[in-house]
Amino acid sequence: MRFELTRDYLEKLRQGIEANDVKIVKELTNDLHPADIAEILDEISIDEARFVYLHIDKEFGSDVLVEMEEDVRERFLALLSGEEIASVFIDNMDSDDAADIISELSEERQEEVLSHISDIQQAGDIVDLLNYDEDTAGGLMATELISVKENWTVTRCLDEIRIQAEEVDEIFFVYVVDEKETLIGTLPLKKLLLANGNTLIKDIFDGNVISVKTDMDSEDVANVMEKYDLVAVPVVDGIGRLKGRITIDDVVDVIKEEAEKDYQMISGISGDVEHSDSIFQLTKARIPWLMIGMSGGVLAALVIGGFETELALYPQLAFFITLITATGGNAGIQSSSIIVQGLASKTIGLESTTRKLIKELSIALINGIILSTLLFAYNVLVEHPMALSISVSLALITVIVVASLFGTFVPLALNRIKIDPAVATGPFITTTNDVIGLFIYFWIGKYFFTVFS
Amino acid sequence: MRFELTRDYLEKLRQGIEANDVKIVKELTNDLHPADIAEILDEISIDEARFVYLHIDKEFGSDVLVEMEEDVRERFLALLSGEEIASVFIDNMDSDDAADIISELSEERQEEVLSHISDIQQAGDIVDLLNYDEDTAGGLMATELISVKENWTVTRCLDEIRIQAEEVDEIFFVYVVDEKETLIGTLPLKKLLLANGNTLIKDIFDGNVISVKTDMDSEDVANVMEKYDLVAVPVVDGIGRLKGRITIDDVVDVIKEEAEKDYQMISGISGDVEHSDSIFQLTKARIPWLMIGMSGGVLAALVIGGFETELALYPQLAFFITLITATGGNAGIQSSSIIVQGLASKTIGLESTTRKLIKELSIALINGIILSTLLFAYNVLVEHPMALSISVSLALITVIVVASLFGTFVPLALNRIKIDPAVATGPFITTTNDVIGLFIYFWIGKYFFTVFS
Repeated sequence: MRFELTRDYLEKLRQGIEANDVKIVKELTNDLHPADIAEILDEISIDEARFVYLHIDKEFGSDVLVEMEEDVRERFLALLSGEEIASVFIDNMDSDDAADIISELSEERQEEVLSHISDIQQAGDIVDLLNYDEDTAGGLMATELISVKENWTVTRCLDEIRIQAEEVDEIFFVYVVDEKETLIGTLPLKKLLLANGNTLIKDIFDGNVISVKTDMDSEDVANVMEKYDLVAVPVVDGIGRLKGRITIDDVVDVIKEEAEKDYQMISGISGDVEHSDSIFQLTKARIPWLMIGMSGGVLAALVIGGFETELALYPQLAFFITLITATGGNAGIQSSSIIVQGLASKTIGLESTTRKLIKELSIALINGIILSTLLFAYNVLVEHPMALSISVSLALITVIVVASLFGTFVPLALNRIKIDPAVATGPFITTTNDVIGLFIYFWIGKYFFTVFS
Repeated sequence: MRFELTRDYLEKLRQGIEANDVKIVKELTNDLHPADIAEILDEISIDEARFVYLHIDKEFGSDVLVEMEEDVRERFLALLSGEEIASVFIDNMDSDDAADIISELSEERQEEVLSHISDIQQAGDIVDLLNYDEDTAGGLMATELISVKENWTVTRCLDEIRIQAEEVDEIFFVYVVDEKETLIGTLPLKKLLLANGNTLIKDIFDGNVISVKTDMDSEDVANVMEKYDLVAVPVVDGIGRLKGRITIDDVVDVIKEEAEKDYQMISGISGDVEHSDSIFQLTKARIPWLMIGMSGGVLAALVIGGFETELALYPQLAFFITLITATGGNAGIQSSSIIVQGLASKTIGLESTTRKLIKELSIALINGIILSTLLFAYNVLVEHPMALSISVSLALITVIVVASLFGTFVPLALNRIKIDPAVATGPFITTTNDVIGLFIYFWIGKYFFTVFS
């Protein structure tokens, strides 16, 4: 029932396209889900994609388009006129998908497409949706939903649902509104099926409804839906009028994107890139962070250079440069990533920043003492000079403590001034920790070598 | 409508509990969603939690239990007898939640609880579910679902749905099975509402159903539901018989957990910890990775120590140790994280490993040439010796290339031998890159200083 894209399959399809063999192409794409066809189109050239697209089931066209990757879709739509886009695709789409796709077009093309949408109501809904910021509940929601009035009977309700259902793919929830279109609850389908025809909706509906406002940030929408295990959530405007609904499949994309963004930030990659992107895109996403890291390296070189005299006297000081910077870096990233994850999932706890820092200090001290004791034992064992052994261990504790506190404090501070705290997990924090760590190390080293000599 | 947990609220609640004031506690928890109550119970002591729990609405009890954090729930259930757990909680739960919670108990307590479940059918379902691996579709699914036979009429179907609906919280899909209980399709509620009473189900059902097998890995289930935008997916056994269904809210948890696992791996934290966990738990999750990193640092010290003679002659070589290791580390993590993300989301592309490595080589060369040219210009500008300037830049290119190829190859190789490729993003790969990078750097440095002097 499910399709797995293989190299063999692509090879066969390409041969069919090259031979202009419509029968083979149809055979190969027949019965596939739109998401599978979109996956195939993402893998082949734009001309091959056009050939395939022309020969798939017409009613699938818009679903395939929705599932395509953004950049492929962009190149694909560039081949079509505004009228074709409107009549072939947009007319068959849900308002939220239509708005997403139209928003990717240039201002000029947007107007062209909108002017060719045959359903005035749909065109109006799309224009309304385009006004919402794409990272808010309004930008995520679809306007297709089923709503009933509180003073209707069950029979009237079923009749109205039948009419409204024409427009909606799947009925998950029936929303109940009052005369002013204010959302007052939901009507579980179960209750509708079990109730007597003359019963009034207001006597059976469920008034405990969780809704979100149109301007709520999409990450917060995801948190609400996740916390309350919601499959769909109604969206209301500032005065509580029902405007649309968000289903969880759209929110899954938000959750994935957020997680990927944080992951890319911690690994020093900017932008949403994949291994299948072009070499140019991948280079562009990676080099800025490498440059930040290298600049940090130059700074570190200046710090080390400042202790050139000591290095010439005690070259053994250089042995542990990497140990100090690497361990400080690791401790810092551990701290900041725990904070970043806690902030993202709202599980950070309610205690004050000071208490968070005290907790972090305790953990850092325990880790620092264990590690530096082990290291001291090792250094004594291999008969390194006592000055070196003491300096390295003392520096190690200090660096772990400083890096951990820094890694805890910076994301909390960034979050307070509304900057994405994940920034604090990238090369930026590691670099800073490197520089601070080296200072501490050489300063302590210099002191002990002077004392012991 | 939604509740926000604040320090003030907790303060008031604690005062109420301390004063044994049932009225205040009831007032404060009244009208709250079970997920909110669970959130509160996670924040207060186990004794306070018991007090609150005793005074909340009885029918909410099991929902609150489902939403609690695992460790809090464990301590909480330890206070109750097997009979209490069975009669108060399990009887009101969906089979998947019940199985999850029972699976957390000791073998002995599991039997005790199971023997006290009043509904024999439910007890049987739970025992069946306990047999599935928790990371498979079988472990995720619930057995509560609505299924109809293909040769029923719409009227019979609605009657049966009314009966079956008693057990099911929400009706999202009606599944259609044949005489042998084999899943053959779904019946959209819309079609059911629009059809005539005498119509046979086999004439209106939708045979294009995507299902998963009970033994499918839960990550794969998540990928399938995400790709096809499914809100619920039916689960079938090896010969296609309908066994249960998975709803997307359970899969959202899988997606989140996977993302968190990868994130914690790259930041060098083991186990699923949060900032609110105890100092002991947090230390335990962090120290192993710090030790790996420190061992790498000791290895690095040995490498650098091997070049002690050169360092004594040319102490300037030490200046750029951090730059080389940090940049190599960054490039390696970039490469491996792109591969790990691609493998997780199945967007890695179909080309061979060799082609992936060639692509990575190109990116590494471009980045390496740009960065080392910049660095060379800087070193010439600040009038560092030519031997140093050349060595550092040459070493930088080499290290970026080696680290990038290594970062690409290792996760691909781990994935092939069925080890979680995310392992390759943690301190392990950075440490290896540090050691290799230092070798390359000092070896090149030694050569050029000898040539130029």
